[in-house]
Amino acid sequence: MELLLNLLFAMAVLFALARVGSAIVSKFGLPGLIGEILIGILIANLAIGDWSLMETLGLEMPVPGVEGDMGSEIYTIVYALAELGVIFLLFSVGLETKVKDLLGSGKAALLAAVMGVVLPFIAGLALILAVDGNMNHALFMAAAMVATSVGITARIIKDMKLMDSREARIIIGAAVIDDVLGMIVLAVVKGMSESGFSIGNILSISIQAVLFVVVIILACKFVVPRIYDYFDNRRRKAIEAGKVPASANKLALALIVCLFMAAFAEFIGLAAIIGAFLAGMLFADYAWEWELEHKVESITSFLISFFFLNVGLQVDISTLTDTSVIILSVVVIVLALLTKYVGCGIGTRIADKSMDNHSAFNIVGVGMMPRGEVGIIIASIGLASGAMSQELYAVVVLMSVATTIIAPPILTKMFRKKYPEEYTILAEDRI
Amino acid sequence: MELLLNLLFAMAVLFALARVGSAIVSKFGLPGLIGEILIGILIANLAIGDWSLMETLGLEMPVPGVEGDMGSEIYTIVYALAELGVIFLLFSVGLETKVKDLLGSGKAALLAAVMGVVLPFIAGLALILAVDGNMNHALFMAAAMVATSVGITARIIKDMKLMDSREARIIIGAAVIDDVLGMIVLAVVKGMSESGFSIGNILSISIQAVLFVVVIILACKFVVPRIYDYFDNRRRKAIEAGKVPASANKLALALIVCLFMAAFAEFIGLAAIIGAFLAGMLFADYAWEWELEHKVESITSFLISFFFLNVGLQVDISTLTDTSVIILSVVVIVLALLTKYVGCGIGTRIADKSMDNHSAFNIVGVGMMPRGEVGIIIASIGLASGAMSQELYAVVVLMSVATTIIAPPILTKMFRKKYPEEYTILAEDRI
Repeated sequence: MELLLNLLFAMAVLFALARVGSAIVSKFGLPGLIGEILIGILIANLAIGDWSLMETLGLEMPVPGVEGDMGSEIYTIVYALAELGVIFLLFSVGLETKVKDLLGSGKAALLAAVMGVVLPFIAGLALILAVDGNMNHALFMAAAMVATSVGITARIIKDMKLMDSREARIIIGAAVIDDVLGMIVLAVVKGMSESGFSIGNILSISIQAVLFVVVIILACKFVVPRIYDYFDNRRRKAIEAGKVPASANKLALALIVCLFMAAFAEFIGLAAIIGAFLAGMLFADYAWEWELEHKVESITSFLISFFFLNVGLQVDISTLTDTSVIILSVVVIVLALLTKYVGCGIGTRIADKSMDNHSAFNIVGVGMMPRGEVGIIIASIGLASGAMSQELYAVVVLMSVATTIIAPPILTKMFRKKYPEEYTILAEDRI
Repeated sequence: MELLLNLLFAMAVLFALARVGSAIVSKFGLPGLIGEILIGILIANLAIGDWSLMETLGLEMPVPGVEGDMGSEIYTIVYALAELGVIFLLFSVGLETKVKDLLGSGKAALLAAVMGVVLPFIAGLALILAVDGNMNHALFMAAAMVATSVGITARIIKDMKLMDSREARIIIGAAVIDDVLGMIVLAVVKGMSESGFSIGNILSISIQAVLFVVVIILACKFVVPRIYDYFDNRRRKAIEAGKVPASANKLALALIVCLFMAAFAEFIGLAAIIGAFLAGMLFADYAWEWELEHKVESITSFLISFFFLNVGLQVDISTLTDTSVIILSVVVIVLALLTKYVGCGIGTRIADKSMDNHSAFNIVGVGMMPRGEVGIIIASIGLASGAMSQELYAVVVLMSVATTIIAPPILTKMFRKKYPEEYTILAEDRI
């Protein structure tokens, strides 16, 4: 009972503070998630004398790099809620992503993703090799710079109700491809740092990832409509025969598929959110009819605040007192922003002639900037395996948070410039 | 990442099995929660040779009576989801309970609750004193027999869409009063077993509990409407002045109040679900306008399965091999069923002349039978403090589960007999 009391108290305080942060930044026209991340940073670092808010809330964080350390029970639960939140968020993004639309923006998304992976990787590798000379350090920094956090950009696009815009389709498509590429890069980098370069390793994870996506797309096009028609026919026949039609609980079915596919993605070495996104795509054509969007939205709106809070909680400001670490951080942040801006922008511009410079660079390029939790996860894997130093870990965390804080307001402004009318809907809805 | 994979896998398997169990018992006209509890018992006891499903799922249960042992991380998270589920369930029950309706069925609910507390307490105390002679054992058994689990009956009533029936009002009202009385009994019993009889202790917890309920009822009648009117006026003025009106996220606000009040109830020694229920009552008059019911319903429908699974998981069949334990269990179960049936039935009949014997005994009496998690919690507190034996703990668990399994199908049948039409809505909706 002690745990339940502490958990409810911690959840109430965290959730209330997150909503306050969200409301405050909304007043300035920024997406609420920035407020939630900043509140997370504030909570993590708020201490007066011997007292700290983290301790009062029972939030003992895991020590980075210590295998199996999950922190206190309450932190473990908050972490689980946060992960479920981002999984359901990507699921609901998937629900709004119909396969035919995704394939429609395929070429631009693909080239934007590839260019947005190659440039940051080269930049990160070259920088750390020049500064530090350690190949493992350089590889992990390069991998962390590659990652894009779909979740953050997706929420901005959802908040602004711009899911149907061409730019949003390219960003979401590119971010998904980017995630798959990023996971392949991570797997390769991890393999190289552990046991040297292995063609088999690269091939196996690459094939798995591509196969997963292709299978889901084929299922969406050919298998799912038939399953749906089968149940639809059975239902119609039952009604004609005068029986009460058997109707499964559709939300439960969707959530079960989402959880299994997220687990499966994690199991084959991809991120759980990729599985959740693809699961959403499976239901996309029936999401409206089954009222799935609204129902998943309610669950997500409760859980997702814990995810962005947790992104903020990971930041320990006190590690950043060394001048050389600060200078390196600034250089890495600038490179992280610039390489996505240029890489994704050029990729979009080349592949899709209908995109002007504003759409290609200022919207797609900026939309791909946030590294969010993905960069931090990659850095922590490097730290845990001993392939990364404590200082570089701090740099990656700062880079991930900085890109996550810097990109959204710019993206919001750039979207607003192109779609002024849609923004009004947002303002009315959220402020 | 290892934890995330295992968690997602365990959640997917648990949730899928729970839905299968729910669907199967629904075919027989039973409420889905019975299937979920039975699936929980099955999962807890499914082992072939060295293999067990619990181990495969990473569900290491806490050892009963070991202070601070929460089992594995995955079990801790499932436990937290279960508790959040029952808290949100009671919150949504509260959302449908308007103060004016509750006060309307006040006298019958009060007398049903009081009689349904006194009779089981006396029976439990007398039985264990006769069989075992240990006063502490007898006191804790009596307290465990007093408890009513509102959650289980509430779900049946919600599933059958009978929230507006007079019987449902009495049951819900009586269950809330019963919970408060049960917690007072628990506090008194715990105090007596620890430090002897103390008037101060009894008075303090009694006053707190009564005050809490009275304050909320007064707030619903006088304070909440004024707060609502204030924001409504401000909004209207903003629209008149040509500004975009500020509208808070109402679901978030409701959830924050729910979490804080659940924590507060737990803090002052009541159950968290009482706080959640009272929080729901605060919003009841605006639940429809703010679309709170549907949104909370989505969150609840995902989480509540874990609660009923967890009720089943707590049952270890192997503890029940001793013949004397089995005989005692049967006697306790019969007494537990009978004392609620007679106590609540007589209470209802005396206080409300409009209730016939079927409504008073077969609906209200049966509806108050399930002890659910509340009995188990009380027994585990007794076990942890050393005031209860391992055998009596097993008996209480069996009694809690048995009453929870026996009562719902009877209640469903009795409700169906009185309200045949409404049942059709349920069948169409869930089967």
